[in-house]
Amino acid sequence: MEGLLTRCRALPALATCSHQLSQYAPQRFHHCAPRRGKRLVLSRMFQPQKLREDQVLSLAGRSGDLTCKSQRLMLQVGLIHPASPGCYHLLPYTVRAMEKLVRVIDQEMQTIGGQKVNMPSLSPAELWRATNRWHSMGRELLRLRDRHGKEYCLGPTHEEAITALVASQKTLSYKQLPFLLYQVTRKFRDEPRPRFGLLRGREFYMKDMYTFDSSPEAAQLTYGLVCDAYSSLFNRLGLQCVKVQADVGSIGGTMSHEFQLPMDVGEDRLVLCPSCHFSANVETLDSSRTNCPACQGPLTETKGIEVGHTFYLGTKYSSVFNAQFTNVHGKPSLAEMGCYGLGVTRILAAAIEVLSTEDCIRWPGLLAPYQVCLIPPKKGSKEEAATELAGHLYDHITEAVPQLQGEVLLDDRTHLTIGNRLKDANKFGYPFVIIAAKRALDDPAHFEVWCQNTGEVVFLTREGVLELLSQVQVV
Amino acid sequence: MEGLLTRCRALPALATCSHQLSQYAPQRFHHCAPRRGKRLVLSRMFQPQKLREDQVLSLAGRSGDLTCKSQRLMLQVGLIHPASPGCYHLLPYTVRAMEKLVRVIDQEMQTIGGQKVNMPSLSPAELWRATNRWHSMGRELLRLRDRHGKEYCLGPTHEEAITALVASQKTLSYKQLPFLLYQVTRKFRDEPRPRFGLLRGREFYMKDMYTFDSSPEAAQLTYGLVCDAYSSLFNRLGLQCVKVQADVGSIGGTMSHEFQLPMDVGEDRLVLCPSCHFSANVETLDSSRTNCPACQGPLTETKGIEVGHTFYLGTKYSSVFNAQFTNVHGKPSLAEMGCYGLGVTRILAAAIEVLSTEDCIRWPGLLAPYQVCLIPPKKGSKEEAATELAGHLYDHITEAVPQLQGEVLLDDRTHLTIGNRLKDANKFGYPFVIIAAKRALDDPAHFEVWCQNTGEVVFLTREGVLELLSQVQVV
Repeated sequence: MEGLLTRCRALPALATCSHQLSQYAPQRFHHCAPRRGKRLVLSRMFQPQKLREDQVLSLAGRSGDLTCKSQRLMLQVGLIHPASPGCYHLLPYTVRAMEKLVRVIDQEMQTIGGQKVNMPSLSPAELWRATNRWHSMGRELLRLRDRHGKEYCLGPTHEEAITALVASQKTLSYKQLPFLLYQVTRKFRDEPRPRFGLLRGREFYMKDMYTFDSSPEAAQLTYGLVCDAYSSLFNRLGLQCVKVQADVGSIGGTMSHEFQLPMDVGEDRLVLCPSCHFSANVETLDSSRTNCPACQGPLTETKGIEVGHTFYLGTKYSSVFNAQFTNVHGKPSLAEMGCYGLGVTRILAAAIEVLSTEDCIRWPGLLAPYQVCLIPPKKGSKEEAATELAGHLYDHITEAVPQLQGEVLLDDRTHLTIGNRLKDANKFGYPFVIIAAKRALDDPAHFEVWCQNTGEVVFLTREGVLELLSQVQVV
Repeated sequence: MEGLLTRCRALPALATCSHQLSQYAPQRFHHCAPRRGKRLVLSRMFQPQKLREDQVLSLAGRSGDLTCKSQRLMLQVGLIHPASPGCYHLLPYTVRAMEKLVRVIDQEMQTIGGQKVNMPSLSPAELWRATNRWHSMGRELLRLRDRHGKEYCLGPTHEEAITALVASQKTLSYKQLPFLLYQVTRKFRDEPRPRFGLLRGREFYMKDMYTFDSSPEAAQLTYGLVCDAYSSLFNRLGLQCVKVQADVGSIGGTMSHEFQLPMDVGEDRLVLCPSCHFSANVETLDSSRTNCPACQGPLTETKGIEVGHTFYLGTKYSSVFNAQFTNVHGKPSLAEMGCYGLGVTRILAAAIEVLSTEDCIRWPGLLAPYQVCLIPPKKGSKEEAATELAGHLYDHITEAVPQLQGEVLLDDRTHLTIGNRLKDANKFGYPFVIIAAKRALDDPAHFEVWCQNTGEVVFLTREGVLELLSQVQVV
């Protein structure tokens, strides 16, 4: 330890700790928000939002038919832009919403012990040949060769890669398990007919978690833990998901559940039993069945979109790659695995699909790209004197409610009437729209506050606005 | 507006705002950190860290030679794991460091008005044919066909895609410019001989920004603004970068600079003039030149690794895709562009390369995966009574210093001596290592604190530890 001490002391930097700290830590510390005093203004947003209906249709034509509400709305207001069939550019509002969703996912996964990794998209063919999925996944895999002729696919999922990675850790002990390893990365699937915008793309973001346990019993516990975390996640987003028994498909394993969000454009058919808790994807049932396998009562059918999927894999993959650990008896033993997916971009689109009206986007409160839109009066109108009040209110909010820094947008397009801008704000679905109009000139000033997720409109003083907004939770 | 009011009121949720809020906002709010009272422990980390030297070599053999210090150290302690030539799995510590780096990048880019987008990796061949880069980029492009035979490359950079995207916005006015659009995504380059670990991979993370201005003068200002943000970024990381004039290469344009981090394994040769501020990549100079073009003084030469690159593009791309805006005279005009790259995974490896010793990793303070490692006494040792004190200190730190929630790791491998665990902690480079040993049993208890970025070791009471750590800045 003395030697270590000497060696460390020999490092070049020799000032005191607190002095030295300032070299590594920045003098200024700022959040992902504009500098104090600088306001976020709508006119500078990169948001091709003035698309006319015919433009939307022609754009969408390049990317399959305009097939559902979320796709149409997201194109109209400039949340996404088609890049090639099944591939979209995510524009700034969508990136903000997605980053918030990823933070919620990180919180939920890390609460149950998830550790985040990041695996390459280029996935060597030999891994997929080892499990025979190079053949069985057929044309869904996007395949390529590098300059040396080596074959790869673009990973649609990573059971092979993660299992080989864990198998490479030769000294694993049962005491270290379970491992819950996950990533949030782009996945690729060569859909024959991509459609529904972000609901069924060829390149999309997915959270995929892989778990490694020391026994089937422990793996069942982990499976339940992840399912509970998924339920917690969807609850926090205000999305009413149904967990149904599902087919294992090309992933394999012995048990599987889907988290389905019921909606008309859903591509899965679900059956639910109103009298007991049974629910299933119809794929898993005998086609002639019309009554509940659990209680024999009649089943009701609905359509849903799969936003999450869980698989109990057993040793299907660990046996192929020899992913072993040393068990309590000191003997090598195969890890019991599970895998768990969440469609990240799909959840965003699905939430918009179920929460929005035909014309107006609504977001889960936690995921709204901006929480507050502030509308000052029209230039030259008789309320123009309230313009400055709106600016001050902006500053007061971001000072008094720190979590809203970077979350308040000023609609500075004051050549437009308040009504027109309110119409836009309604379309975009900011949870709170605050208007400085006639009553802002009262003493004390009153602001018109639209709570868009409830449909309520109230007039509040500055203090009232701050009190209301201090309750807003952001992630 | 009345109609709008009615329609909004007709939305299903009708409770009061504050009541309703609780539906969308979670009851519990937690950071990306374990629940209160739950401690992060080292024994549960997925970190294949016990690799012996021969294992490291055999692993690395699959991924090119073991070519530099950062690659060797990152493999040894389990920060990365080879997946295929030039492709690495990023393991949990690296993902944490990378996410911190991305936050610093976001802050710097958003401070100058950057807006974050996200463009697909699958990039249609027709875009690249339009600029002739489908041909000129040659074998560096990874190419593939989808099931319909349509050709794509995996984007190594996105000038074509972003310009086509901006060109699609038909109603752009000079008043909206500049746009500073950026993304942090995986890029692909089919390197003939990938090497140096994350320094030169085939799949890597890059921040790429593209700017659109209304005049060459405005574009020059934006160019300077982005360069300043890059300097600010590297300053915050404590990395002494040199900005040198550079060749425009396959990107094109009329002016270019590189941000080079001087290091022996650097692949670029730089010349610097000690008497004036001139600096350049030797590629840009006449090979016979030995004196400074600015002051005629002698030039010194050094090697560097490029961590950032800026290009002034003019209308090279906007003219191909017709990316226009309406100028102050109401006439269509081509946007003046710039593009700006930062190698995200490369910066991580380069920082490790320059800051580490041969055996011990050192991080820029802001990017360290965990800020604090707490080492309780060995089980059965005569200091064992201090174990509980170490646990309490863990809780005190995370309670009293909120920004360190999720940043403190307890090395619970108490079957090992303090010395052995300190050796590991030294290798991993936690900025602060706190040991509860003999003097923790004093009254008041004293903890041994290793400030690893300065090499200083001090004994502090609990209050002293809290005071020291309260100065640590995290991102």
